Amino acid sequence: MTKITAVKTIRTRAAGMWAIVKVLTDQPGLYGIGSASDVRHPETVIKAVETIAPMLIGRDAGRIEDIWQVLYTSGYWRNGPVLNTALGGIDMALWDIKGKEAGMPVYALLGGPCRAAVPAYAHAGGRDLDELEDSVRGYMEEGYEVIRCQLGAYGGGGFRDPVSVSRPVNAWPQLRVFDDEAYLEAIPAMFARLRERLGFGVKFTHDVHEHLRPQVAVQLAKRLEPYRLFFVEDILPPEQVGWFRVIREQCTTPQAIGELFVHPLEYVPLITERLIDFLRLRVSKAGGITPARKAAVLAEWFGVNTAWQEGADNDPVNQMAAVHLDMASTSFGIQEENDFREEERAAFPGHAVLKGGYLYPNEKPGLGIDIDENAAAALLDPEKVKRSYLRGEPDRRADGSPVRP
Amino acid sequence: MTKITAVKTIRTRAAGMWAIVKVLTDQPGLYGIGSASDVRHPETVIKAVETIAPMLIGRDAGRIEDIWQVLYTSGYWRNGPVLNTALGGIDMALWDIKGKEAGMPVYALLGGPCRAAVPAYAHAGGRDLDELEDSVRGYMEEGYEVIRCQLGAYGGGGFRDPVSVSRPVNAWPQLRVFDDEAYLEAIPAMFARLRERLGFGVKFTHDVHEHLRPQVAVQLAKRLEPYRLFFVEDILPPEQVGWFRVIREQCTTPQAIGELFVHPLEYVPLITERLIDFLRLRVSKAGGITPARKAAVLAEWFGVNTAWQEGADNDPVNQMAAVHLDMASTSFGIQEENDFREEERAAFPGHAVLKGGYLYPNEKPGLGIDIDENAAAALLDPEKVKRSYLRGEPDRRADGSPVRP
Amino acid sequence: MTKITAVKTIRTRAAGMWAIVKVLTDQPGLYGIGSASDVRHPETVIKAVETIAPMLIGRDAGRIEDIWQVLYTSGYWRNGPVLNTALGGIDMALWDIKGKEAGMPVYALLGGPCRAAVPAYAHAGGRDLDELEDSVRGYMEEGYEVIRCQLGAYGGGGFRDPVSVSRPVNAWPQLRVFDDEAYLEAIPAMFARLRERLGFGVKFTHDVHEHLRPQVAVQLAKRLEPYRLFFVEDILPPEQVGWFRVIREQCTTPQAIGELFVHPLEYVPLITERLIDFLRLRVSKAGGITPARKAAVLAEWFGVNTAWQEGADNDPVNQMAAVHLDMASTSFGIQEENDFREEERAAFPGHAVLKGGYLYPNEKPGLGIDIDENAAAALLDPEKVKRSYLRGEPDRRADGSPVRP
Amino acid sequence: MTKITAVKTIRTRAAGMWAIVKVLTDQPGLYGIGSASDVRHPETVIKAVETIAPMLIGRDAGRIEDIWQVLYTSGYWRNGPVLNTALGGIDMALWDIKGKEAGMPVYALLGGPCRAAVPAYAHAGGRDLDELEDSVRGYMEEGYEVIRCQLGAYGGGGFRDPVSVSRPVNAWPQLRVFDDEAYLEAIPAMFARLRERLGFGVKFTHDVHEHLRPQVAVQLAKRLEPYRLFFVEDILPPEQVGWFRVIREQCTTPQAIGELFVHPLEYVPLITERLIDFLRLRVSKAGGITPARKAAVLAEWFGVNTAWQEGADNDPVNQMAAVHLDMASTSFGIQEENDFREEERAAFPGHAVLKGGYLYPNEKPGLGIDIDENAAAALLDPEKVKRSYLRGEPDRRADGSPVRP
Repeated sequence: MTKITAVKTIRTRAAGMWAIVKVLTDQPGLYGIGSASDVRHPETVIKAVETIAPMLIGRDAGRIEDIWQVLYTSGYWRNGPVLNTALGGIDMALWDIKGKEAGMPVYALLGGPCRAAVPAYAHAGGRDLDELEDSVRGYMEEGYEVIRCQLGAYGGGGFRDPVSVSRPVNAWPQLRVFDDEAYLEAIPAMFARLRERLGFGVKFTHDVHEHLRPQVAVQLAKRLEPYRLFFVEDILPPEQVGWFRVIREQCTTPQAIGELFVHPLEYVPLITERLIDFLRLRVSKAGGITPARKAAVLAEWFGVNTAWQEGADNDPVNQMAAVHLDMASTSFGIQEENDFREEERAAFPGHAVLKGGYLYPNEKPGLGIDIDENAAAALLDPEKVKRSYLRGEPDRRADGSPVRP
Repeated sequence: MTKITAVKTIRTRAAGMWAIVKVLTDQPGLYGIGSASDVRHPETVIKAVETIAPMLIGRDAGRIEDIWQVLYTSGYWRNGPVLNTALGGIDMALWDIKGKEAGMPVYALLGGPCRAAVPAYAHAGGRDLDELEDSVRGYMEEGYEVIRCQLGAYGGGGFRDPVSVSRPVNAWPQLRVFDDEAYLEAIPAMFARLRERLGFGVKFTHDVHEHLRPQVAVQLAKRLEPYRLFFVEDILPPEQVGWFRVIREQCTTPQAIGELFVHPLEYVPLITERLIDFLRLRVSKAGGITPARKAAVLAEWFGVNTAWQEGADNDPVNQMAAVHLDMASTSFGIQEENDFREEERAAFPGHAVLKGGYLYPNEKPGLGIDIDENAAAALLDPEKVKRSYLRGEPDRRADGSPVRP
Repeated sequence: MTKITAVKTIRTRAAGMWAIVKVLTDQPGLYGIGSASDVRHPETVIKAVETIAPMLIGRDAGRIEDIWQVLYTSGYWRNGPVLNTALGGIDMALWDIKGKEAGMPVYALLGGPCRAAVPAYAHAGGRDLDELEDSVRGYMEEGYEVIRCQLGAYGGGGFRDPVSVSRPVNAWPQLRVFDDEAYLEAIPAMFARLRERLGFGVKFTHDVHEHLRPQVAVQLAKRLEPYRLFFVEDILPPEQVGWFRVIREQCTTPQAIGELFVHPLEYVPLITERLIDFLRLRVSKAGGITPARKAAVLAEWFGVNTAWQEGADNDPVNQMAAVHLDMASTSFGIQEENDFREEERAAFPGHAVLKGGYLYPNEKPGLGIDIDENAAAALLDPEKVKRSYLRGEPDRRADGSPVRP
Repeated sequence: MTKITAVKTIRTRAAGMWAIVKVLTDQPGLYGIGSASDVRHPETVIKAVETIAPMLIGRDAGRIEDIWQVLYTSGYWRNGPVLNTALGGIDMALWDIKGKEAGMPVYALLGGPCRAAVPAYAHAGGRDLDELEDSVRGYMEEGYEVIRCQLGAYGGGGFRDPVSVSRPVNAWPQLRVFDDEAYLEAIPAMFARLRERLGFGVKFTHDVHEHLRPQVAVQLAKRLEPYRLFFVEDILPPEQVGWFRVIREQCTTPQAIGELFVHPLEYVPLITERLIDFLRLRVSKAGGITPARKAAVLAEWFGVNTAWQEGADNDPVNQMAAVHLDMASTSFGIQEENDFREEERAAFPGHAVLKGGYLYPNEKPGLGIDIDENAAAALLDPEKVKRSYLRGEPDRRADGSPVRP
């Protein structure tokens, strides 16, 4: 029996929003790492890990399923972004340990590789259609087959100048307003142009970032149908997933959702009622490899595919956990890419390698990724660490009311 | 405890169809006002208020929820336009009193403002497409973003010359007939023209006034889809709301309904089954701020938006109640406008102000609107008060049978 | 063509709560009568009739269907107790006229009698079980086969002494409190006793008067199952009819509801989804013979039976309208009885006759009932007419909150 | 405009698990308090409040709805016990401020009192049936009408000696095991005995603490039916609420659930599909008064009642928030009690008063409760503050596998 002896959390990246859980054991040199990063509430999640940690000391590191179940209800209330992420980081570290003890990569423990590498989709974007087209072409040349296309950042395509309202909007100056109908006009036009220029050989996705009123989301899904997206993502907020049924009755645009999900009731009915096509949980926010693997299995029974969330704020350890799941899951569909700076990669030896539109794990035991704690510490910028990374003011509509998310 | 000492009703506007309930209290100068107007049955509603009034005397004006529940069943039978409106006028007056006692606008009591002002939609119309286009352009220049487009009055677009029928139809000479299929041809053509001339930047709605057979309503909704309305309104009568499911299966045209609703069973299932997009109750006809707020909350849980009814026959007090709800409700979508003559406004100091497509409440305690009883009395025209304002003959089809509504 | 020349309303009974609509025509001596009584809002309904009346003058009295449709939407808003009752009174009077012109009873026009007489159910009650048993035995001896059994008045069986609450309850002294669980104990015990003493040969009903929380209503229905009621009545308020599905899954206790219904959406789904067994509309509150006949037809298609509401506040004209429907309807199930004082009967020559548990119409043309206006006027007691007949304070639970209805 | 100037959190109770949020403003002496207590993760929630706090500075304290919406998505991921509780504490404090500014209790702002006081249910328990009966009788004498009956603590009734298993279970010695079928035998027997001794006049509830496999839960609900509980509580864990439909098809035992709910998708469908009878959210865990009020409204539309959670670890401020909602909500059903030590009460001047089975708020503006920071600090026991309060080992079945929760 391998006993857990300590649990610690290492913050890194400039703003310290990456939190890597390290679970140490009584076996010399044997430890595991996991991702408990949260770009908005890094310290809250770390505090949760610290609160849970004593409960791990002395336990058999190999009893992952039991530990997961015990920790899951250890706070009485469960789920939610904070506790799930803390649990997720611990769970990944336990799988890392188990792989090391077995002398096998985690994907081998999960049933062995059922693909040679992990196809990823790229994030193309541009402030206008020309820039976007250049961006898409760039990724096509790199070998990507699936490319996410956005007009600028969150809500891009839906912004316009504010109509003058004679009193200040919510006391904060408003530089631009989000307009659902402008978005409904802009995004189909964007895809019309891309299809015209690039044909139907390349696969596209689009991320709505939940900006739309439900009825406009339904319209958008239908208007996008002629452009045959690989999927549209986050067309509804988690609170309004009941509207997927309305979308389903209207069109065949494939639906992907999940990066905001932190509770099984958000995704289990969507899968079992076949209301979505791609499940996009973030592995850490779902609570780790243990529940993500079970979600992948559920998806397989119902013909739904996975597309684990990655993207800007995610760290190389969570990415690696996703890649291991991807390698061994029959229900795998596509993997979101993530890109890091050179010095960030250097702090995570063994990280997944992105090449020609594919992600490659290595064949080392465990997750195959480590953290160089000195390099990680050197990344921190004390000034940035102090800042708040809450979302700040949301986008707002012309009358000043907030747009979700 | 603030005791209610008297309830009176003040009629105004030329025809006396505006009925303002005034609830007086034992606190010096403290009273509240509410709207119990009914353009067709003004005296019936006033009689209901008079019947109910004695039950209010001596009660604590602050116990709004209890009073609402007690009055709601006080006639044993409940709901319906007459009793709901009487109750609605009383309820608004109680909220007005509560706001005055709190020294806060009603919207502050309801949770505080969550927008800067209330966007309203305008009523454009014309006897032909040119006139309509001019009308729309006028409202666009005023700053409106959402504009209702009608060809003439009720049923406009659906009229044609009568086919000769060899015996008199219902004993009334029939100058024109309503034809469902003519409407189905005319209205999409109207929007085709408007979109061609004005593009997709302006938002349009259309009001069907429930003139169509259900199967034609379904067709119209689908035929309007390419013109991307902000919503189509009253495409079905309240008796036939079951057909919304058929519409939903066919197209994405957003659906708004509610101005005729006077019973919760008309709207609760439409909201919870996500069959409509905008709930258009008239605050007074729903029974006041108390139930309208509850309906707005229900709508919020299901991603449906509010668009409280206003329009020609409504009074400035009901409008003000709607505006207070709009200011504080997350589920708010859009507000129908209403316009009054200068001397009508003068009788209601503190009325909402319509400017640049937005309605503005003020920051006075309570509803912030008062009635100048002398000015209100001066508006009355005794000749007009005597007239009946029932709807008279309905539009009829070629065979003489009546069109709903 | 028989032209309508005048519409008037005659109030009678001591408190003036019976309102009989009289429609006069241009044919000598030809008129019809109908019931527009409302025990709580008599003057409000009369005002509605007066408002509508001018719209009738000059119309062909024989065009009942057309008039009904035109009047139904003449106030724009429709349904509800006030407008439906006004319309119901007018509609009955038109059927009375039509029968007189045909020289036939109304039931003959409706298809002819399909039964010899109309079985009615009696209202037994008592302050305790002994008194109740005596009352039931009395009705059995009179020949009734179906008997409604109540412990005292509204909510009887559910009252107990108030628990002391240290502050006044809603400012009104509270003499007794309603307790759902006490009712759930008392009423099954009542039927256990009645079945033990009287066997299963006599048929029982019970009226809950909507006093229960929905979950207690479900329990009551199930607990009553062993006593095999003919039906239980108003176990839910109109706002909560969705709970009939839960009741249906739990037990076979037959469900009757409808006396409070004033909107088709209250009853159409209950019939078409087979969630109730007896439809208990009041003919006048449904809007007259025209819509009640259509509801009876709908019920026939779905195997639901009618049991038109009668009872204390109803008048002989509404009763007669119900009896005509009963005589000619295949979906007829049972008729609630009503009993009048001798002098009240005298004011309505031709009234239905109750004998041996059966109601008998006569064979005179039309409804077969008339009003003796002098006798009717003599019944009025000016003091009582002035009083309010609203329901006053509702029954309240121990914490002072009101019980519906 | 009242500006927020600071947000702080005060820990108290011996173990420091009560966390009271204090929102200060720029108005002299004006502040509000709210509850952000979490017995398991006190420091995690406090860290979340601290992370969110800067976003509040400078905002208008009266814009509660806008602030709630903005904060709700400020962490991008939302819901869950940690973020909801942080938000809940802030929201209560804002309502406290609004009430103080209005000079009214919060229940007055919410529509005014619709009951005289708040009936509460007591927690009876005993290690055996005799002790339990004594405990129940004690509460009956105090005036309680509804009493929760438990055999010992969590899972009481379901424990038995461990069957010998040849290897150690989870490395922790196991003194007793939980057995679903033993529970299924013991609890109905417990109620059989209580009903035999105490009759059906007293109302009982029982809390299953989610210990059962779903199919056993269904059986238990059915076996409890003859004892007519007021409700059974937490018969299923939040992950398995889909089984309520199976329970509903089998029996009428009323179902209460919600204290573990931290996401709207856990309760909205249970309410709208009428699968539960009592909604037992904890106000702070739901996210404060703002969403709890909206949940109470949703429940009202569907005939479901509220029974906000209280109990051992909850603090007097959350209790007071629940009591304000109770006073003003038509959908209120019953309130769980909570009891505090004398010195704990002293630290919260104005706390709700429990007397004769009823909870009483006061009539002071705002929530009417304050925190005496010195007294609160004096309650802290530094040794206890350091301890972990996670749930530790769960109950386990004979084979060593954990029982939820």
